[in-house]
Formats: sequence, structure tokens, C-alpha cells
Amino acid sequence: MYEINETHDPNLKSWVESANDPDTDFPIQNLPFCNFRHRSNESGSRIGVRIGSSVIDLEALPVQKEFQWWLKSSSGPWKLDALGRLAPHSPNEVRNYLVGSLNEDADLATKELVEKVLVPESEVSFHSPFEIGDYTDFYCSIYHATNVGSMFRPDNPLLPNYKYVPIGYHGRASSIVVSGTDIKRPHGQNRSDAEKPPVFIPSKSLDYEMELGFFVGRGNEMGTPIDIKDAEEHLFGVCLVNDWSARDIQAWEYQPLGPFLAKNFATTISPFVVTMEALAPFRTPAFERDPDDPQPLDYLSDDNNLKFGGLDINLEVYIQTEKMRAENIEPHMLSRSNTKDLYWTIGQMMTHHASNGCNLQTGDLIASGTVSGKEKSQRGCLLELTWRGTEPVDLPSGEQRRFLEDGDEVIMKGYCEREGFRRIGLGECRGRVLPAD
Amino acid sequence: MYEINETHDPNLKSWVESANDPDTDFPIQNLPFCNFRHRSNESGSRIGVRIGSSVIDLEALPVQKEFQWWLKSSSGPWKLDALGRLAPHSPNEVRNYLVGSLNEDADLATKELVEKVLVPESEVSFHSPFEIGDYTDFYCSIYHATNVGSMFRPDNPLLPNYKYVPIGYHGRASSIVVSGTDIKRPHGQNRSDAEKPPVFIPSKSLDYEMELGFFVGRGNEMGTPIDIKDAEEHLFGVCLVNDWSARDIQAWEYQPLGPFLAKNFATTISPFVVTMEALAPFRTPAFERDPDDPQPLDYLSDDNNLKFGGLDINLEVYIQTEKMRAENIEPHMLSRSNTKDLYWTIGQMMTHHASNGCNLQTGDLIASGTVSGKEKSQRGCLLELTWRGTEPVDLPSGEQRRFLEDGDEVIMKGYCEREGFRRIGLGECRGRVLPAD
Repeated sequence: MYEINETHDPNLKSWVESANDPDTDFPIQNLPFCNFRHRSNESGSRIGVRIGSSVIDLEALPVQKEFQWWLKSSSGPWKLDALGRLAPHSPNEVRNYLVGSLNEDADLATKELVEKVLVPESEVSFHSPFEIGDYTDFYCSIYHATNVGSMFRPDNPLLPNYKYVPIGYHGRASSIVVSGTDIKRPHGQNRSDAEKPPVFIPSKSLDYEMELGFFVGRGNEMGTPIDIKDAEEHLFGVCLVNDWSARDIQAWEYQPLGPFLAKNFATTISPFVVTMEALAPFRTPAFERDPDDPQPLDYLSDDNNLKFGGLDINLEVYIQTEKMRAENIEPHMLSRSNTKDLYWTIGQMMTHHASNGCNLQTGDLIASGTVSGKEKSQRGCLLELTWRGTEPVDLPSGEQRRFLEDGDEVIMKGYCEREGFRRIGLGECRGRVLPAD
Repeated sequence: MYEINETHDPNLKSWVESANDPDTDFPIQNLPFCNFRHRSNESGSRIGVRIGSSVIDLEALPVQKEFQWWLKSSSGPWKLDALGRLAPHSPNEVRNYLVGSLNEDADLATKELVEKVLVPESEVSFHSPFEIGDYTDFYCSIYHATNVGSMFRPDNPLLPNYKYVPIGYHGRASSIVVSGTDIKRPHGQNRSDAEKPPVFIPSKSLDYEMELGFFVGRGNEMGTPIDIKDAEEHLFGVCLVNDWSARDIQAWEYQPLGPFLAKNFATTISPFVVTMEALAPFRTPAFERDPDDPQPLDYLSDDNNLKFGGLDINLEVYIQTEKMRAENIEPHMLSRSNTKDLYWTIGQMMTHHASNGCNLQTGDLIASGTVSGKEKSQRGCLLELTWRGTEPVDLPSGEQRRFLEDGDEVIMKGYCEREGFRRIGLGECRGRVLPAD
């Protein structure tokens, strides 16, 4: 569905110089959408497209004829909704148009027009790209599920449903914040001493979870499932997600209805929607199941999904403590995992979610669950990395971490690399832990 | 906080004759808010107040001076939001004003003004009162939790956290529909035969759950908990909720993250927001705990909550099958339970929900979980009532039910009665089961 085309040509360069920096997440081959505001004035939130270290103010672009129909069909701060409803074709049209006008070979008149609406990153603030109606979090890394399961149920780490059902649950939409927002340590019930009643105290085991998020573009009507063949047509693009988790609260509250206050105090997303089309060169086969594993049921099976349903996105987690900042020590990498290790594809997640007729809506956020790999260095949360705090991580400042401490900043990065293609990135998802009140 | 005052006087009568019918849910003492449309024209959705068999079109009322400030501060189809944000005082002001102008002693000029904007129920359709941002479902009936627990974990029916934690989870906001909407039987994975792989088929054990819902009025900032003393100030009012459930899907999918597709295909609400002030005469003490039970932790403890935190609302569930309709047999009552049997109060639910800093927003829906009592006749879902299908219910048509069949209509009603006060009701919450595709 998302074929590699001339917009993925690694030799394409832009007249926006910063887009040609080999380390940028945002070369001309990427062009993710975003929602931003000018810091200096009160013009409200605007639709942008990120390139290099700048943002194109799409709404101020004089040559709008290629996409003015959707800009005009929308209003209010959530204008990306109108484009999302027309996914995938309309976001692709806009991206294709911009690849043409940002190309170093673009004619002078076009360059001059676009240049006028280029805003340096330093002059804007980014906001959530959509008003997220519903947020669903899956649990699609079999390595994560097995690790966590073996801590809580050593005799039965992976539950019998795991290889049949893309396990997911509903998260909290209201507390989703964008990268850069501080996160206050939550209070909650803690019953670490089973001999005594629980106590209501600030969480002692605050954690992050490194996840991939994807935004629904075109929704489905209630009662009308999404065929696995069409699943990706309902997607707009992807972002990074930090599903902050309070493990002590979670351990005590989660039975029988799942996590609630352990998760819903905050979820951080990166602000850029990297489109499925930009990701076309980085598709992989679906997870290779063990020969003894069951095949997905028919409603989750499709040849294209099997061949191209996966995504090769590197996900890195860094930490910088207060001491590290004071001593000018760079953020320290805690893990690097990859979304190609997910047991279920994003197409299977979408189709499963709507298989009972549940209506997905434009701007809904769906996350993968913690992305972990087979190796210790690929574990996407501290719960796994420190094995419930029993194997603390050493930091270059001489400190150790079992779980997050006040002042710690967690920085997540995502990027795609493939021989013969231009590297593209998802940007960053940052958040610093503030002490509890 | 909600004191009994002259608006609760049982002798008050209205010049709207249908409001004086002793059986109406909507006497002058009630006056719930709603969101309606005229069937005959395209005027869009409007804010109304229900009285007897009519609706007052608040937006067309010429004498708006008492509340035009909030009508003007809002736009779009979700105008109740603006009023909700100012709960509880502003909804009370509007109600008080209307009690005055609907009173049989109102002056002729007032009567004439209001009469012009009274619309008969038969000329309108009702819609969801709010655009529901997040939907949370609790599990606050200890009888329900014990019954369900003893089916799934006979040796350990009530989990150790139950008497400390108001257990809740996030539901799906997008699939909340208003009374009268047909519900299509969902497909899902069924593994009733543990010897074989699961199969993807229409649910064989479709169920309802009789719940009380409440709408958040004034929200709280992220990171700022709600003190138990102030909890009810964040409420707008209550409605009926049918949390449709597919028990076969639920049994297979729910571990370890809770119910997902078993619930999110549909949730039905009644369209009227019965304000906390209208419910003032029907407050009860909080659930009387066994002497051996732990007391609520401090953050959930408050004298007023203990004395007045409960609600005395009768909840009835009826069924009418296709055969019953064909033979003109009236709907058959399946259960009558009461919200005073809930183990946790609505104030405790609110405070617990926000205790980690989670931000509640105007129009969020919070539901109690299935309201069941001690007796068999008080079991608020078929799972309990037929004990997982092993004790079918006999219907007056000669039919039996273990779970819901296609064509069955489930009708929920709620009302308050107390010696010395006028009966008020919550209206109805109906839905008919359509066959799977």
C-alpha cells in the first residue's frame, strides 16, 4: 500500500540547509505534520510541517491551492482532524506537494513563497497534534510480556491468550501531554508490606515505558469492523509515547480490571506525526513466530500484513539526572529496542480493536505497549531493565537507578535507518520528574 | 452540601399538567438537563430541561437574563459544557429559576413566556448531554464483585485490594450511545472449549450491566487531586448506564490488563442529567462496613461523606423479547437494586480517581459498575442472575434466558422515593439487540 517512490530518493536535497544535515530527524524525505504556536504572538495553534530545524506554517503558505480544501474545511485548534479524516491519500498529497517545493531544484518563485512561512524551531512551541478522543494501549512485545509475567507469575509468565489476542486496554486521554511537560510524582496506595494495611504515599517505583504510538486517520462507523487488508488505510502516522507507570500502585490495584491510577496520571507523546508514507522504506515482515506458535486467526491474517506489516524503527531511551545536569554529563542511554520485534503488527492492532464493531475516530491514539527485545539492552522500561529494582543500573555520574528519582529527565528518541535510504527520525519525547506535593 | 430546600417541597405543583402526574419521572422537583433536537427542523442540538412529558427549550426562552451568561459563553452542540464547568452553583441557579417560573403560582406573563418554548417529548429526539472526553467504569458493588469473583475464583472471590481500593478502569468514550440506539451483537474470540484454539464468532453470552453514571461538572487541573471534602462540588448530575458486556470475549481476553473488546462495542446512557441538587432528599449514609472490614484510608475519609455520601436510587431492569412484543406482553422485570448498596460513594470514586493527579474534565462520564444487592432479585446483570447461564430466567412468554438473544430489548429505569418527598426519576435507558452481521 505504501510504495517506495521518488519522494524516498536518498539523493533528494532541500534548499532548507538544516534538512541536509546527516543527523537531522527531519530531512525532505520525512516531513511530519505538527501543531504549533508562535511563541511571540497570539495567533493560536497552527498546522505545520517540520523540515530540518524549521517548521513550515502551512496555513500561511500563499500557494495553498493543492490543499486549501482541507484547511478551509476545518477550524479551531484541531485542524489536522480534517486532514486525518481523509487519510491516507490527502496527507500523501500534501507531503508530495511539499517535497516538490522544498526540493533544491524547486523554482525560485516557489522557494521565495515557502521561505516566507518557514519558522525556526526556536520561535515556536509544539502541542498535541490532535484532540485525542480515546487512547488505547496494547501489550504487543512478547519479550516485555514474558519478562513482566515472569516477575509476577514465575510459573506462568505468558498467559494462554497472548499468542491469539493482541492484548490491549483503554488508557486515559485527558492526561496525555506533549514532550517537554514536567511530570509530578503521583501519590497512590502502596502495599509493599503484605502484613500491614496499604499506605497512601508518593510512588516509590516510578517508571517509564518506551512505546510507539500511532494516530487514527480515517475512522470506522460503529458496528463496522475494519478488514485486515484495509487496516493501514485508517492510519495517519506514528509518534513516540512514554507511558509513565507507577509500579507500586500498579501491583496493588491491577486485579481484576487492569492498570488505572498506576498509568493515568500522565502519558507523554512526541509532537510530530510521521506519516505512513514517509515510513514506506522501513517496512519489515511481521514477527516471525516459532514453528510451534499458533498462526493468527483468519480475521488477523493477510499476506501483505505478513510480508510488510512490521516497522523497523529504533527506539532509544536516555536518562539525565539532576547530578548529571549539574556536572554537564550527557544523557545516558538505557536501552535501544526496535518495533520490528513486536509480536503483533499495527494493522493487526487496528483490525482487532475494531473487530467487535468498536468505532475508532480521527485523532485517536493507539500505542504498542512497551517495546522490548530479546536482549537486556533492549528492555524498554526500568521494571525489566533492573528486574523490579533488584539489578540497579549504573550511571556515568556514579549514581544508580532502580526506578526514577525526582529531577530525572527521561528522553526518548526514534529513528529509521536502512542501507540505500535517507535516515528519518521521529523526534524526541522528553519529560522530567518533579517531586510529589 | 446539597441541602433540602423549598425546591424539594412535595406540595409544589406546576402549571405544566403532565408534571403533576404521580407516575412521572419529571415533576417540578426534578428538572434534569438534556441535549435535544426538534424532529421537524434543522435547528441543531439545543439545551433543554425536562418537565413532565415536555422539554423546555432553554435557548429559546425569552427571559434568559438569569442564565444568558452561560448560554452565550458556549457554542456548538455541547453547550452544557459551559454550565458544567460552573457546577454546582450555576446548574442550581438555573434549576431554582425554573422552579419559580414553572410553579403553578407563577405570574401569567412568566407562564406565557415559558409556554411558548415548551416542546412535547414526541417532537424531539434526545442526544448525549456531553461530548464525553473520558469514560471510567468502577466496580463498586461488593455483591457484584463477590458474585463474579466466586464464579471465576471460587477459592478467592473477593481480592485483597477490594476493601481498600475503589477498583476502576477506563472504558471507551467513542461508543457511548444514547437510549434507544440499537446494539449489534459483536464478534470476538471465544475459547469456551479449552482443548481447542479459540474461534472468532458472534458473542454467545451477551449481557447488560445496570449501572449508575455521573457526569463531571467542574474539572481539576492535572497534578491537583480533589479533596474528599470537595469531591461532590465537581459533579454535575447522574444518569443510567447500560455497560453491555460480551462474557465469552471477556473471559478469554481480560488477563492481565482487564476488559477491552468485551465492553467497548457499546455503552448506553439515559439522556437526562439529574442534578445533585434534585437528589438532595435521597442521600443516605455511606455503606455500613462489617466491623471487621478496614476503614477507608484517610484520603477517602470524611464525616460528611460517611453520613450523606450514599444515594437511595432504585434501579430496575426489564426485558422484552421479540416474542413478547409480538404477543403484546409487557416488559418483564429482571431485577431491582439500589445504589445505597454500593461499597464506595461517588465522592470516594471521584477523589480516588484524581488522587494521583489525574485530571477529570467537564462532561467526563464515571460509572459505578454493576449495581447488585444481597438478594438474587437484586442482581444487576444476567451473569449473576443466571449464575453464568446455569440458572436460566423464566419469562412470561414461556421463553427462558441465560444471556441476551437477538431482538431482546433491555429497558433500565431509575427512580427515588422517600416518605414526605415527591418521587423523581432518571428516565429510561433502552437498547435492542440486533443480530451480528
